[in-house]
This record gives sequence, C-alpha cells and structure tokens, in this order.
Amino acid sequence: MTAPKALAFDVFGTVVDWRSSIIGELEMFGERHGIAEDWAAFADAWRAGYPKAMDRVRTGDLPWLKIDALHRLILDDLLDGVGIGDVPDADVADLNLAWHRLDPWPDSVAGLTQLKRRFTITTLSNGNLSLLTDMAKRAGLPWDCVISAELFHHYKPDREAYLGCADLLDVAPGELMLVAAHPSDLRAARDAGLMTGYVARPLERGPGHPPPRVEDGEFDVVAGDFLELADKLGA
Amino acid sequence: MTAPKALAFDVFGTVVDWRSSIIGELEMFGERHGIAEDWAAFADAWRAGYPKAMDRVRTGDLPWLKIDALHRLILDDLLDGVGIGDVPDADVADLNLAWHRLDPWPDSVAGLTQLKRRFTITTLSNGNLSLLTDMAKRAGLPWDCVISAELFHHYKPDREAYLGCADLLDVAPGELMLVAAHPSDLRAARDAGLMTGYVARPLERGPGHPPPRVEDGEFDVVAGDFLELADKLGA
Repeated sequence: MTAPKALAFDVFGTVVDWRSSIIGELEMFGERHGIAEDWAAFADAWRAGYPKAMDRVRTGDLPWLKIDALHRLILDDLLDGVGIGDVPDADVADLNLAWHRLDPWPDSVAGLTQLKRRFTITTLSNGNLSLLTDMAKRAGLPWDCVISAELFHHYKPDREAYLGCADLLDVAPGELMLVAAHPSDLRAARDAGLMTGYVARPLERGPGHPPPRVEDGEFDVVAGDFLELADKLGA
Repeated sequence: MTAPKALAFDVFGTVVDWRSSIIGELEMFGERHGIAEDWAAFADAWRAGYPKAMDRVRTGDLPWLKIDALHRLILDDLLDGVGIGDVPDADVADLNLAWHRLDPWPDSVAGLTQLKRRFTITTLSNGNLSLLTDMAKRAGLPWDCVISAELFHHYKPDREAYLGCADLLDVAPGELMLVAAHPSDLRAARDAGLMTGYVARPLERGPGHPPPRVEDGEFDVVAGDFLELADKLGA
C-alpha cells in the first residue's frame, strides 16, 4: 500500500462518542425541567432521524440546511411526540447544540496527535463547520483544518463531498484516506477513488450492538482504535 | 465596544512575514541554479502581481483559480522576464509553494494562543485552503479552523468572503472581527458589517516603507501586535 498524504475523518461515532454525550445532555435537560423520559431511547431516536433528514436534502425535497437545522427539526418532533412543549425556546436551542459538545473516544486525541506528526489530518463530516469547530475547541481535537459537507452543499455519501475534500487539500483522491467506523461511508469514499481506513467503534450504539461486519481486505487498513491506526500507517 | 465572538485573520502580511520568507526562498533557488538576481525586487514584483491577478478573477476575466495557480502565472512571467527558462518544472513548482512556507511574525503564535483562550480564531485569507493548512502546520499557528476565500469563490474585498465567513461560524457579521494589517481589507469588512481590528506591521514591505495612515477611531481596535490585541480584547 502506498502511504496516503492526508487523512480525512468521519466524526460522529468515529472520533466522538455521540450516544453517551447526548444521553448525558438529555439527562441534564430532563433534571432541569423536571421531565422523566427514557433518554437513551430519545437519543437513539434523535440520531435515527438524521440520515432520513439528510436524504431529504440529498434528494432535493428540502433545500440545503445545516445539520444544526436538521437536528432541530428532529428534536422539535421528538419533544412534541413526548408531550414536552412548554420548555423555553432558548433551552431547546441550547439542547440542540449538545451535538457541538460531544466527547471524544478515549484514544481519539492521542491517536490524532500521533497521526498529525506524519499526515495532514482533517474532518470530513456532515456536521456543519461551526459544530465541528466548537467540538474541536472543547475536546482538544488537533485538526490541521476543518472540512465539512457544508462546504460542498453535498452530504456524504454524495461523491462531491469526498472529491471536494481532496480538491481543497490539493491531493489526488487516491492520496486521501477516509477514516470511519461506518462501512457505508467507506464504500462511498472508495467508489470515489479514496483510500479507506476502518476503525471499529463497538460501543457507538451502546452495549449489545456489535459493529457491522467487514469483509477481509475490503478496506486498505483496519484498526481497533486511532493509536493502532497510527502504528499501522507508520506515524 | 461589545466583545466579538470570533476573530478572523487576514494572513499574508498580518500573521506571516511574506517578504522575508519569499526573499529567503528565492535566494536558495538562485544558489541552487546558479542565478544571480535582485531577489528582493523579484519578491516585491511577485507580490505586486497578485492583486491584479485576483482582480482578473473578481471581474470575471479569469475563471475561479486558486492563489497557487495565480502565483504560478505571475512567477512564470517573472522568470521569463529575467530570462530564466531552463529550470526544471518541478523546481519551479516547488518554488511556487514557497507561499505555503511563510514564517510568522515573532508575536503571532504567542498572540494567537492567547486570543484562542477566549475567542474562536480562524483565517480569512485569499490564500487557498491547502496553502493555509500547510502554513499553519509548519509554523504552529493554532487556528480553530481554516477559512479561505476559496470556499466562497470570492476573493476579498468581495463582500461574500466576509459574510460567508460569519455564516460558516454561525455568528452575525457584527459578532465577527476581522484582524488585518491592511486598511482596505478592514474597510471592506466594516462595510459588510464586521468589527475591525487593525494591527500595524511596519516591516511588511521591508524597511523604509511606513505602514498606511489610519484615522483615529476608524477601526474598533488598533494594536501594535497580537499580544497587545489580546490584552485590549481581554483575552
């Protein structure tokens, strides 16, 4: 395998543990407003609404909207669904920004720091740029730059997102490796000509949800975490 | 003055000393190829060609081109003009990337580090994203994110660049401060509704070229370097 010149990271689930973070934020929100709910189920439903909302943008059913706006649409529906309608708007807006405050997996900062010594490292996330910037600032994620699907007005897995990232970095698609915990993202990147690095995140959907099956040799590198990825890439 | 939420920095001349860096790179290039030239004058001519080339893009005379491509057009003309035509293309291409390897002013890294504690700090430069990313990585510039005119296909002083930066950061134009050593850039930012911070860089064009005159009260903050700017902004 030729070494890549740059690494682009999927973020939700790959770099940060969205589920634990969102459940924690929802629990605080519930305590503050005296609401008891199954917040783990609520978090899963919030996340589950997100690919559907993005697909409405990808197919043209909705105009371009940032993930912040899509998260808010889903959140408002979920709050209505459980009969929570009297919370002040500012509090709902703040809750929506919980996605800016996700905690990294334990190996993320150390692994990225090691990878950064050898490679240019960037996000390539459907999260909007301010979300990714706020998250990096809070969590100490040492990105060389922050690239979002927002810059292309094309959500992954649209080909434009992968190729747009390579163009901004001035590398050929084959010199850029997407790193992700999601085979579907990696397959779309591979179809666009990128290299692929799979990192398993077995706890992304909580305990008892094993990560997706990956065929031997399907991706260029497979690693258990970012530190192993760094070792395998010689960083 | 209300405090800004985010600071966007002009880069060439404001954060980095392009002139000394480019002269140094040209001298090395000359030595390697046995060419004697007035490299300071060559550097000044290279830089002088850049606003004209951008204006050709801004007026539609040229399609969108990255600064790397504009720098190369100007460089090829200048090399032809002094009769240097037999240098291998790879060496000219590498020389063109000298703009990715500019050194910061002595206060830049310390000042940005101090400002970053309180504010989101980003580039807002006409330099392309890979240029700004390479520069930050080499020089240790601690940006929270890297924003370039390239993302809007509008070079400063087009209004779209200033407003596009605010939109990506999810702040109102009036919550974003442009920091620059160039009054013309600051005036365009102010006209687009941004706050303005002027930092004098009296050595940008070499000794004996005093910085432009600035009227009292024309900009929201005036500072002698980034450390003074940080103090004045309470960071």
